[in-house]
Order: sequence, then C-alpha cells, then structure tokens
Amino acid sequence: MNDTAIKVIGLVAGMFTSCAVLPQVITTYKKKKASEVSVFMFIVLLTGNLLWIYYGILKQELPIILTNLLTVILNIIMLVLKIKYKGNK
Amino acid sequence: MNDTAIKVIGLVAGMFTSCAVLPQVITTYKKKKASEVSVFMFIVLLTGNLLWIYYGILKQELPIILTNLLTVILNIIMLVLKIKYKGNK
Repeated sequence: MNDTAIKVIGLVAGMFTSCAVLPQVITTYKKKKASEVSVFMFIVLLTGNLLWIYYGILKQELPIILTNLLTVILNIIMLVLKIKYKGNK
Repeated sequence: MNDTAIKVIGLVAGMFTSCAVLPQVITTYKKKKASEVSVFMFIVLLTGNLLWIYYGILKQELPIILTNLLTVILNIIMLVLKIKYKGNK
C-alpha cells in the first residue's frame, strides 16, 4: 500500500477516535442526566488529550494538535453537562 | 527537549487515552446499568481503534498496535456490559 493510502487510513482513524465523545454529548444533552456516565473517563481522556497536544507541539505535528484539540473541546462540553445535570437522577 | 523526553510524553499520553474507558467499565459494572451511556460512543471509538491498529500494522508501529488493542478490549467489555444491563433503568 502506498504512503498516501496509509495516511488516509490514519486520518480516518483519527477522525473516529476524536469524534467518539460527540454521541455521548448528544445523549447527555437529550436525557438531561449523566449519573451513570463516569466523570473519571472524561478527566483521564482530557489529561491524555492535553498531553497529546503538548507532544504534537513538540513534534510540530499539526494533525495531532488539531484532532486532540477537537476532543478537548468535546470533553470540556461533556464535563460541563455532567456538572450541570449533577442533581438529575 | 530531547527525543527521549518527547517519546515519554507520547507514551504517557497514549496510556491516558487508552485507559480512559476503564473508569466507565468500573462505573457500569458497579451500577449494573448504563442507559445514559451512549452506545454509539463506544462503536465509533471501536471503529477508530480498529482503524488505528490497521494503520499500526501497515506502518509497523508496535506502540500504536498495542495501545489501541488495549482500548479495543476495554471497548468490547463496555459494549458487553451495556447489552447485559440493557433492561436496567
């Protein structure tokens, strides 16, 4: 397989893993509750994504920076929703 | 910063993003319900991780293969729990 095809697979893989939090954000926004959703999952994910951004800056790899920045934003939205609906069971 | 330090940051980042699903698996196992957890999040994540493994095989990058394999296993456990506790509200 040529290099371009491999790059495309990497980009598609990155898009999937970056956007994975989006369905959870939508579900939580609709249900207005998230007591069964682990807050630690998003804290661990957020920490990992921030480290990836730092790694991307050090390696000057824009795709790593951008895809992880997207996940950071989605994670922050999810954490805000989690706090907002804290009382709802 | 030297190359080894950058590699360590990348490895730690990878460990965080790979293990992020683990707290959700524990929460779901304890609560015995997951109706508020989006099944699509784990399907999208699983698809992304499988594509990353394929990418890792093509690029012969063992760290990419191993970290994503760990997430695949955690994702499958989470999906099994989600199906198992489907009726629990």
